[in-house]
Amino acid sequence: MNFCSHCGDSVSIRVPSGDTLPRFVCDACGRVHYQNPKVVTGCIAAYEDRILLCRRAIEPRLGLWTLPAGFMENNETIAQAAARETWEEANANVDNLTLYALFNLPHISQVYIMFRGNLRGGRASAGAETLEVGLFSQQEIPWESLAFPVIRESLELYFDDQRNGCFTTRVGDIIRGPDRRIQINRY
Amino acid sequence: MNFCSHCGDSVSIRVPSGDTLPRFVCDACGRVHYQNPKVVTGCIAAYEDRILLCRRAIEPRLGLWTLPAGFMENNETIAQAAARETWEEANANVDNLTLYALFNLPHISQVYIMFRGNLRGGRASAGAETLEVGLFSQQEIPWESLAFPVIRESLELYFDDQRNGCFTTRVGDIIRGPDRRIQINRY
Repeated sequence: MNFCSHCGDSVSIRVPSGDTLPRFVCDACGRVHYQNPKVVTGCIAAYEDRILLCRRAIEPRLGLWTLPAGFMENNETIAQAAARETWEEANANVDNLTLYALFNLPHISQVYIMFRGNLRGGRASAGAETLEVGLFSQQEIPWESLAFPVIRESLELYFDDQRNGCFTTRVGDIIRGPDRRIQINRY
Repeated sequence: MNFCSHCGDSVSIRVPSGDTLPRFVCDACGRVHYQNPKVVTGCIAAYEDRILLCRRAIEPRLGLWTLPAGFMENNETIAQAAARETWEEANANVDNLTLYALFNLPHISQVYIMFRGNLRGGRASAGAETLEVGLFSQQEIPWESLAFPVIRESLELYFDDQRNGCFTTRVGDIIRGPDRRIQINRY
């Protein structure tokens, strides 16, 4: 951020009066421009014993497999956002969405909120950001070609819970350290 | 938003190529400025049979009672943010934070994520944004002087679950319609 989005003057990084963290503050109008984490939300959409995955048509991780997910938009609920992303990426409708997992990715200031639900009619096809879609059982999941650690973690927990016959809401941290290593904390 | 925070030129509202929603787009450098919901997080901090509440020293709802809560910051986990807010608003430490409730407030593009935990030593005092703190049993809660509907909803669910001896992760929508009426959906 170089300029104030309100008045167009330059901004400086400083701690506003009464605050504890450095912020972008306008040198002219004094407006404080807060930056906060973003919510990414998506679905584990099941049809019989299989899960819907999408192969990415866009960077990052073009060509790798992911759950349908994306940034929550203003003026929608998280479940609406998860259903919308599933529609946009896989032309698929989901029913009975239930909150399943919440993951912190503090190194990129994102919160992932994953739902589980039913893929209506088992019907899906590639949306604009998707090369192809597929329905996979646990054994068929392309475990070596998943796009992101949060996708692997979501799927591992899901199949664990499914095997145990009990889904609970999962919370975890997925942190990429300065050495690029991934650390996963499960709570 | 009037100006591009990157180059300082003017912005227009239009649907970028490949997108489906209108965004602020810079007329000069073409940068798209996305706006997304913010996460607010806080704690139901219990000591024996009582809950920590804070009386607000700031607008909105100055003088009314609330749970310690506030906007999540970049580079922290949600639980860290909830503990930080409890420290800032009530000089209080919380242990054993467990995800308790997730509320959509789509009319103001906020997601509330509430934890429950233990107030260490029962110790708390007013932070900079707080007039006073108090520990309240269910009967003592100032139900008519709570700051926000999301606070009332969190506390009602909490005491219901406590009475039933079983806490589950709650999900709900708290929506203020154009007629100013509050609609609450529990899932």
